[in-house]
Amino acid sequence: MVQQEVLDRVFASLADPQRRRILVRLGEGPATIGELAEPVGMTLTGMKKHVQVLEAAGLIVTEKVGRSRQCRLGPAPLDDAMAWIGFYQRLWARKLDGLDAYFTLRNGTEGTSS
Amino acid sequence: MVQQEVLDRVFASLADPQRRRILVRLGEGPATIGELAEPVGMTLTGMKKHVQVLEAAGLIVTEKVGRSRQCRLGPAPLDDAMAWIGFYQRLWARKLDGLDAYFTLRNGTEGTSS
Repeated sequence: MVQQEVLDRVFASLADPQRRRILVRLGEGPATIGELAEPVGMTLTGMKKHVQVLEAAGLIVTEKVGRSRQCRLGPAPLDDAMAWIGFYQRLWARKLDGLDAYFTLRNGTEGTSS
Repeated sequence: MVQQEVLDRVFASLADPQRRRILVRLGEGPATIGELAEPVGMTLTGMKKHVQVLEAAGLIVTEKVGRSRQCRLGPAPLDDAMAWIGFYQRLWARKLDGLDAYFTLRNGTEGTSS
C-alpha cells in the first residue's frame, strides 16, 4: 500500500515538464531555488511549489543554506517507477509474442520467408 | 513540445493505482469496462473515467463491441516514459560516480582494500 503511494507520488511528480527539467538540471549538480527559477523565467513561489512536490516524492532533497534553499537529487531515484514500467513492458511484449504466434499459426508455412 | 505532452499524459495516467492495475489486467488480454470494474467493486462510470484517461495517453485502445466497450493495451507502450526515466537514472548514477571519485580522492590509499 505504501509502495503504491510512493509510485503515485513519483509518477505524479513526473507528469509535468517543468519538474522533469528540474530533475535533469539537478543531475548536473545542486542548485538553489533561485538558480532553478531564473533560467526558465519562473517566480520563486512557483518554483518552490514544484520543488515541494518533488521533495514529497523523495526525488529530491532540500537543505537551508544561509538565506536560500539548496536542492539536490534525492537518495531514492526512480527505481520503483522503472521496475513498474519494466514489468508492464514485459506484459506487453508477451502479448505481442502471443499475436506473433497467432499469425504464424494462421498463415501456416507462408510466414517467415524474407 | 508534443513529446512533452505525451510524457505528461503517460506519467499522469500512471499516477493512480487503479489505472496501473487496469494496465496489468489488460496485459493478460482484452476486457470490457464491466469486466474491469466488477472485480475491484467499482462503478461502470468510475471505471469509464479511468479508461478515458488511459486512452487519451495512448496506453490503451477501446472499441465498441455490441453493447459494451472492449479495452486492450494500446499500440504505443511506455517506451518514452522508460527512456526518460533511464536518462534520469544515468544522470543519477553519474552523480554517484562523482561522489565515489571524491571520497576515493579524499581517503587517499585507504579506500579499496578488502
